[in-house]
Amino acid sequence: MSLPAEFALIARHFLPLAGEGALDLADDAAVLDIPAGRRLVIAADAMVEGVHYLPEDPPETVGRKLLRVNLSDLAAMGAAPLGYLMTTSFARGIADHWIAGFVRGLAEDQRTFGLSVLGGDTTSTPGPTCLSLTILGTVAPGAELKRAGARPGDDVWVSGTIGDGLLGLRVLRGEVPADAEGHLARRYRLPEPRLALGQAIAPVARAGLDVSDGLVQDLGHLCRAAGCRAEVSAAEVPLSAPARALLGRDPALLPALLTGGDDYELLFAAAPEAAGAVRAAASRAGVPVTRIGQMVPGAPEVVARDAAGTPLDVSRGGWSHF
Amino acid sequence: MSLPAEFALIARHFLPLAGEGALDLADDAAVLDIPAGRRLVIAADAMVEGVHYLPEDPPETVGRKLLRVNLSDLAAMGAAPLGYLMTTSFARGIADHWIAGFVRGLAEDQRTFGLSVLGGDTTSTPGPTCLSLTILGTVAPGAELKRAGARPGDDVWVSGTIGDGLLGLRVLRGEVPADAEGHLARRYRLPEPRLALGQAIAPVARAGLDVSDGLVQDLGHLCRAAGCRAEVSAAEVPLSAPARALLGRDPALLPALLTGGDDYELLFAAAPEAAGAVRAAASRAGVPVTRIGQMVPGAPEVVARDAAGTPLDVSRGGWSHF
Repeated sequence: MSLPAEFALIARHFLPLAGEGALDLADDAAVLDIPAGRRLVIAADAMVEGVHYLPEDPPETVGRKLLRVNLSDLAAMGAAPLGYLMTTSFARGIADHWIAGFVRGLAEDQRTFGLSVLGGDTTSTPGPTCLSLTILGTVAPGAELKRAGARPGDDVWVSGTIGDGLLGLRVLRGEVPADAEGHLARRYRLPEPRLALGQAIAPVARAGLDVSDGLVQDLGHLCRAAGCRAEVSAAEVPLSAPARALLGRDPALLPALLTGGDDYELLFAAAPEAAGAVRAAASRAGVPVTRIGQMVPGAPEVVARDAAGTPLDVSRGGWSHF
Repeated sequence: MSLPAEFALIARHFLPLAGEGALDLADDAAVLDIPAGRRLVIAADAMVEGVHYLPEDPPETVGRKLLRVNLSDLAAMGAAPLGYLMTTSFARGIADHWIAGFVRGLAEDQRTFGLSVLGGDTTSTPGPTCLSLTILGTVAPGAELKRAGARPGDDVWVSGTIGDGLLGLRVLRGEVPADAEGHLARRYRLPEPRLALGQAIAPVARAGLDVSDGLVQDLGHLCRAAGCRAEVSAAEVPLSAPARALLGRDPALLPALLTGGDDYELLFAAAPEAAGAVRAAASRAGVPVTRIGQMVPGAPEVVARDAAGTPLDVSRGGWSHF
């Protein structure tokens, strides 16, 4: 008895990704046990061709980015990865080698991050490819890092560098010159989920999240959850060497770097007396962190000042779909 | 500090759907405990406008169908609902009242089935709307109903009626006349997840799944998992009165009813000596079940015979996207 092409596609491409609990992707659902003494942490993010990735992006990095933006949500909660489900609505007529590349990227990152696919659904669409991934992780009860909890006086910290994702997109669109090493494009295509850092800082930070919609917009979430204001020193915001080079040529770029999306760094607030513990945790995780400002009393708002103390116009906010 | 339109949309439409563990949809992920002594059951299904539902379908039933096709996967495993995550890639320029209706439908079915949204993502697409839902449920360890496990000699049972989903789609497309009560269109738009039945038959059935891609194709999955053949008596396959009326006018319709999708009934195998227990379980669940055939030794294959014993041509198989 022959199977429809859909099942052949699943068997050929997706079955090799399946892990424990996935029941060989042959059942209606996956069945799994959450390890004793752990809570389930679960999130879902979608990516649409031409919106969240470029049609000419390599399929390998599209698969890896889909997994990584979701892993970044686990990182932001201080959680460890457990597995994922994925639904793919592929554009009709998509090349088989595109799907093969997409799956190769997922397989590579499954190994890197130690998780596997638990289930999902494969369909087609007459429009651009729509991908959705649901990530499962676990955290010890009470250890989860949340957006709420920052207090006036807390330091504001960020990991890695800010603005590379936006600049990478501009490089790939041909709007700014590429750096020789391809660092910016790589940062747009392959965000680095800060899983070890998230777990390391969760016990010492008061509140945190990942920067996906722009530093200013996401810091605004911390402000609203805390009912206070944030003051950011733009000169302290960590930039990569290629970003610094582009900013040197065009100083007006600064507000865009602070509001552009696709950074996937961790942004968190911690008491000033925890600064040593924050630095020690970051060092253990092998990820640089930088103090960029402070939570202060006041209405929820983010003020970013240049080196002269003048507020920058960051009112454009972050990315929105509507 | 004003929020982008995307957040306003989430706050206005989706926040009222949020339940315990969803952290008011304000965090990067939901955090929840799986009740002690239960295993997590998780599945994901996508729906694309124009593929899985008609552009002119009421948004209320689109939301309810998205939830129900996923609940049907829980039913097929004998699991009870816990919650769900959803990613929505709405067609650009979608009317706000469409989203409001979609959410109204979800809210109604959340009450009906006793679950709530835990998280997700809202994006836009230049193509048709793509919806993806991940359903979470729980089951007692060892109580899960799987596709594998049927044996030669087992009875094959199906719940409810078969073929209404396909005929409902044809009615809505104007290909066949509508029944006066609108039963067929309603069955296409609003499948009935057989949750109580799934939990009731799980202890007495050997294997089972839900019929989403057509009775013959899905029974083929049971055959392959069991390494045996299924013989179905087409005359025994339960049909609704409107389906029976259409079949009376066009007897050639029978193979289409056996291979059409969107039934969302439960299909399961049980030992002949369990027939009484199956009927008792179905009666407790308040859902009719019908014995339609038998698993027999042989290569994995489904043979459906008409009343004269002649095999029907059901080689067209079920729905496939590729």
